[in-house]
Amino acid sequence: MTTTPGIHRSNEPDEVPAALRSARATIDNIDAALVHLLAERFRCTQQVGVMKAEMHLPPSDPDREDRQVARLRALAEEAGLDPVFAEKFLKFIVDEVIRHHEDIAEARANGGGTLQS
Amino acid sequence: MTTTPGIHRSNEPDEVPAALRSARATIDNIDAALVHLLAERFRCTQQVGVMKAEMHLPPSDPDREDRQVARLRALAEEAGLDPVFAEKFLKFIVDEVIRHHEDIAEARANGGGTLQS
Repeated sequence: MTTTPGIHRSNEPDEVPAALRSARATIDNIDAALVHLLAERFRCTQQVGVMKAEMHLPPSDPDREDRQVARLRALAEEAGLDPVFAEKFLKFIVDEVIRHHEDIAEARANGGGTLQS
Repeated sequence: MTTTPGIHRSNEPDEVPAALRSARATIDNIDAALVHLLAERFRCTQQVGVMKAEMHLPPSDPDREDRQVARLRALAEEAGLDPVFAEKFLKFIVDEVIRHHEDIAEARANGGGTLQS
């Protein structure tokens, strides 16, 4: 197989048909973007966790989550993504965020100061 | 509260502190980007599902998934995202994709032609 400079050479075995290999290269690029956006999102929610702990706000905020669900479902419909999946996706992320926020609040309650941030 | 043209006015109640409101506006922007990337990813995996059904390939491909996990864990480490979370995230997405691929294969087996794509 030849490679074209500047074009991502997919990490796929040669027996995979070209059309499938090409689609997978696109998926791999999208996944790299998703991972970087998620990393940035957690950097941001980490700061929110510290703010919430400082202000003695609870780790979860059901009203905020309701607004997020409604907004993401509308965005998903517009983008052609299943809104039910978009809602499940947000819940998946928020569950992880709340776990981080609880860790931050607990670390502070136990003397704090040891946060990475 | 005043609004600045071109600056996203967050969808947050006025009693939310400004720093928290600002962090949430960033999170909302990231979430919109995530939803659009996920929509594009599913458009792409939908095409993969059709290809797989045409080529009579199985909906899931454990070797491909192993390569994806290894790659995403490495990208996550580089981006400062928990690699365990990155792996869970990929599994969450791939489970949905496999469900779609099974639906496509089943629709084809039942006479096909009714696929949106």
